[in-house]
Amino acid sequence: MATSPPKTAAALIIGNEILTGKVQEANVAYLARELFALGVTLQRVVVCTDEVATIAEEINALRHRYDTVFTSGGVGPTLDDLTLPAVAQAFGRPMVRSPEMEGLLRRHFGERLTEAHLRMADLPEGTELVATGEMRWPTVLVDNVWVLPGLPEVFRMKFPIIQERLRAGPPFISRAVYTLCDEGEIAALLERLDRDHEGVTVGSYPVWGGSGYSVKITFDGRDSKAIDRAAEALVAALPADKVVPTPLDADPRKP
Amino acid sequence: MATSPPKTAAALIIGNEILTGKVQEANVAYLARELFALGVTLQRVVVCTDEVATIAEEINALRHRYDTVFTSGGVGPTLDDLTLPAVAQAFGRPMVRSPEMEGLLRRHFGERLTEAHLRMADLPEGTELVATGEMRWPTVLVDNVWVLPGLPEVFRMKFPIIQERLRAGPPFISRAVYTLCDEGEIAALLERLDRDHEGVTVGSYPVWGGSGYSVKITFDGRDSKAIDRAAEALVAALPADKVVPTPLDADPRKP
Repeated sequence: MATSPPKTAAALIIGNEILTGKVQEANVAYLARELFALGVTLQRVVVCTDEVATIAEEINALRHRYDTVFTSGGVGPTLDDLTLPAVAQAFGRPMVRSPEMEGLLRRHFGERLTEAHLRMADLPEGTELVATGEMRWPTVLVDNVWVLPGLPEVFRMKFPIIQERLRAGPPFISRAVYTLCDEGEIAALLERLDRDHEGVTVGSYPVWGGSGYSVKITFDGRDSKAIDRAAEALVAALPADKVVPTPLDADPRKP
Repeated sequence: MATSPPKTAAALIIGNEILTGKVQEANVAYLARELFALGVTLQRVVVCTDEVATIAEEINALRHRYDTVFTSGGVGPTLDDLTLPAVAQAFGRPMVRSPEMEGLLRRHFGERLTEAHLRMADLPEGTELVATGEMRWPTVLVDNVWVLPGLPEVFRMKFPIIQERLRAGPPFISRAVYTLCDEGEIAALLERLDRDHEGVTVGSYPVWGGSGYSVKITFDGRDSKAIDRAAEALVAALPADKVVPTPLDADPRKP
């Protein structure tokens, strides 16, 4: 773990099932929202195939460049579960059997335990098993790489423990203004707002019919007063009948 | 365009809105399913921020390594729409105004046309505007890079024209067997099936309660007979009460 709170993050999503369209990826949006609320910037996401060399290469490209890396997927007992050996390869470390994980697996599966199950106790050397009293299964952390399961329900169950470790300082905040404008009409105005309001990032998102508005303008940053000033400057600059009356403090990250 | 049909593809999803969790990414699953059906292997997806240098770097990392690259997002008229300048930078080419696109924009917007709208007619030198009679707006292709809009409805509208260009030969096929087994019980069996059935890739996907099955096993490849043989070998090897009676030819890519 870095001694200062992490500021940047990346995610590696592992699985042919995502790349063949068999499974709709569901962890990135959740991770993105949680990291935003923690004040950690998610800067890059990569989706890769189930191959040890590929996964290891992707992990090495991410772990040196970002403070924290999350992997999702490839941690079960079957032939396409290759993330842990790939993490070991990325760090140049052997896989070693963890007595703690082996004990958990033996207690959980009892007589049904197979060699394939036991393989889940083989972890890269130096793995930290991060646990709380409430969680039966610990979460795998190898240096700055959190190794998480792909199943969305389990991915979410693991997150509280990660939040505790990552709490970084001032969270990010986002406000939205919903308008009936065409993006082209307001492009110059948005550029001016982005330039004039330091520490505020302006985003512009058109939608396709049926939403009661045509473009959502978002203002993101850590300073809520600066965000309010920018949002109010937009509202003041638009004709009143082009602004859809939505509370400025509605969370724009909820659809 | 390569003279032989493309076999591998990658996608670059551009947008802070995905990385902050404001918007749920919706084009990768669609693209993955369509490419699978075309027999093109989607090998890597990257999600990156709205910055010209970052986008250009990602495009260069992908376009040399994969036959075809798709970008999604960042092609509107506002300040965070930077994909086309980034494509130009990646190829080391200037942006030039396209008379064809300018004409389309002038006809579409009429008196409401702004300078910001016209910027959408500035394209990397050497861009091919791929059009059919039915589509009002052409699709932007720069060498092997298709530049697509992020709005899911428009992304999908553009796809028929891409399908025509990409049709590669034998499509991929996928069959699934739904079981009540635990993954650990069948891990060794799945490894043997994967090894014994050449040209068939075996995947194993557990679900979390409430689905009427516990693990979905998929068999992917181009040879439907080989896929059937592998799927039938699995069914024959399992106790009958562990197989959930679902037609073998159900499309496992539909949830």
